[in-house]
Amino acid sequence: MRNEPLLLTPGPLTTSLTVKQAMLRDWGSWDSDFNQITAAICQQLLAVANAVDTHVCVPMQGSGTFAVEATLATLLSPQSKTLVLMNGAYGQRAARILQGLGHETVLLDMGDYLPPDPEEVALRLAADPQISHVVLIHCETSSGILNPLEAIAAVVAAAGRELIIDSMSAFGALPVDAQQLPFAALISSANKCFEGVPGFGFVLVRKTLLEQCKGRCASLSLDLYDQWHYLQKTGQWRFTPPTHVVAAFYQALREYHAEGGQPGRLARYQRNRDRLVSGMRELGFVTLLDDAWLSPIIITFLSPDDPAFSFSAFYQAMKQRGVLIYPGKLTEVESFRLGCIGQLHDAEINQVLAAVAESCQALALSSPEICLER
Amino acid sequence: MRNEPLLLTPGPLTTSLTVKQAMLRDWGSWDSDFNQITAAICQQLLAVANAVDTHVCVPMQGSGTFAVEATLATLLSPQSKTLVLMNGAYGQRAARILQGLGHETVLLDMGDYLPPDPEEVALRLAADPQISHVVLIHCETSSGILNPLEAIAAVVAAAGRELIIDSMSAFGALPVDAQQLPFAALISSANKCFEGVPGFGFVLVRKTLLEQCKGRCASLSLDLYDQWHYLQKTGQWRFTPPTHVVAAFYQALREYHAEGGQPGRLARYQRNRDRLVSGMRELGFVTLLDDAWLSPIIITFLSPDDPAFSFSAFYQAMKQRGVLIYPGKLTEVESFRLGCIGQLHDAEINQVLAAVAESCQALALSSPEICLER
Repeated sequence: MRNEPLLLTPGPLTTSLTVKQAMLRDWGSWDSDFNQITAAICQQLLAVANAVDTHVCVPMQGSGTFAVEATLATLLSPQSKTLVLMNGAYGQRAARILQGLGHETVLLDMGDYLPPDPEEVALRLAADPQISHVVLIHCETSSGILNPLEAIAAVVAAAGRELIIDSMSAFGALPVDAQQLPFAALISSANKCFEGVPGFGFVLVRKTLLEQCKGRCASLSLDLYDQWHYLQKTGQWRFTPPTHVVAAFYQALREYHAEGGQPGRLARYQRNRDRLVSGMRELGFVTLLDDAWLSPIIITFLSPDDPAFSFSAFYQAMKQRGVLIYPGKLTEVESFRLGCIGQLHDAEINQVLAAVAESCQALALSSPEICLER
Repeated sequence: MRNEPLLLTPGPLTTSLTVKQAMLRDWGSWDSDFNQITAAICQQLLAVANAVDTHVCVPMQGSGTFAVEATLATLLSPQSKTLVLMNGAYGQRAARILQGLGHETVLLDMGDYLPPDPEEVALRLAADPQISHVVLIHCETSSGILNPLEAIAAVVAAAGRELIIDSMSAFGALPVDAQQLPFAALISSANKCFEGVPGFGFVLVRKTLLEQCKGRCASLSLDLYDQWHYLQKTGQWRFTPPTHVVAAFYQALREYHAEGGQPGRLARYQRNRDRLVSGMRELGFVTLLDDAWLSPIIITFLSPDDPAFSFSAFYQAMKQRGVLIYPGKLTEVESFRLGCIGQLHDAEINQVLAAVAESCQALALSSPEICLER
């Protein structure tokens, strides 16, 4: 077994040794050598979304949530009214950020795992001309659902509103083309599909929009305009960046391109998903979602309806076998999650499935069959 | 020469190889093994300030500024009125954060490098009973001045007001005893005197005070109360922590204790300062501050009044010799700074002084003598 566990989690995830080794030197955060790394990262991220000519990339220290809050706090004005398309924890979090900021917010709440219907979104926008912005979670990792981004983007654009995409766990693996799919901002993080280590997020934001946002953010730390402006002027992050994490991300981008960029990474994640789902189904586990909505990012499995099963016992049994799994985040049914992303290849998926089979035996589940039916 | 430059900067700074090697594994941010690291770090930081019984330690993702803003946004209420003791960029930054938050703020502005006078602070507090909080920068790294923390703390306590200490670049090296020196909050960062890598800050905050601050912070990401409450309840950071940076900090604390903790570290930094100052003076350079105010953290030297000298040329000459120096941050005179902190021992200080001598020759300074007099 490796001397570190496999992370079957949606980030922080298992990264390559070479990405981690990129952290074995110190960088002057003020120095031109480091500034070049930041510039190259931003340019490459824009290229992944075909957004070089229309958008700018602004990195932000902290977790992905810090980047989401920075985006909302900087782009929205007191006159904004935001429709949040909600089907899980990350939609709820965006709504909570907006409420904290005191911005008017309306919700389309689909519950735990149903996708928002583009036609319903179109009706809501038509009925309320005050709605200026729509927030969509690209892949809602609380259930693992891949939301219908293209269809939603089309109705938002048709209604002349601005789309803000929380693509935290999807960008880099799922295709996004800013020239085909209009968006004001797309937010993601270092430690998801680009397979870096955690420490910063980033936002692709339409340049003509960000240029209007000077002085709008009450927070000094989270002011996306100021961060961009200072970066433009000096090449430096406004406040101390996580230098080692940034250097690791630069190496992660190299490995991303070597794997064939977005199509290559997506292909591996889809294969991981397909192998995990079929392997788990063979063991009797049931997925929360129908196949059509299963993302190649993370999959929710229903917990077996067996008194011998508890998440914590299962977690410990898996951990003893070198695999860290992720708890469920559903309000109504017991579940757990397995991520498809990170440095997981066929050998690691085989290890995971073997660990699941052994853990089921170790827990003496009366049957691997799942009795919960949807 | 090493394959990475020496950082003569006040953080990010030069860290040990073993601290960086602690980043060569991935951690599940949800896992108990990682939670134990977080708990141990917080406990050890409290112990350094003799604050285990009175304060709690709350880490915060992002740069040190994020931790300062989190502290001010969470501890202050709309009724607060804050006196900021300002003698440089970090005092100005605290004032700017407070203005963004919309809190009433008054300034005692000492300009570029003069210390605040405790008697004057006492008079200001006596004259204005509305002032509820005082913000002091422990070591103002823009000039390198070590502000009179003990005397200020005494007058603030005597007046019954709350003291918030930005000890970003000093805590860990300068002694702080929470039982002798009353403070509401002390803020610092991973990548300063504890010699970790950048990615998070932390706040030591009086427990009875933080308990009253639920719901006070408008920002979700920067809510220090919520971060603490969630940590208490789950052992986990509220949002994804910079796991590798945290693991590196845990190793950095091991090495801190091995060096003798605060007294051991301070002794090395003082020796670095003394050797840098005397070596630079031998080369003809002049310090901005009198000896009494020179901190063992960072020293400001006046730029030679020689047309052959420019900071950028000197910077490049030093960089070619493997040393990154830091620009000055004074408004009135040209200057540059050398840090005393980080993994700098006698050999590294010798290397720095040799590089300065060579760089002066390379720039063909007409004389190493400094003509600017104070």
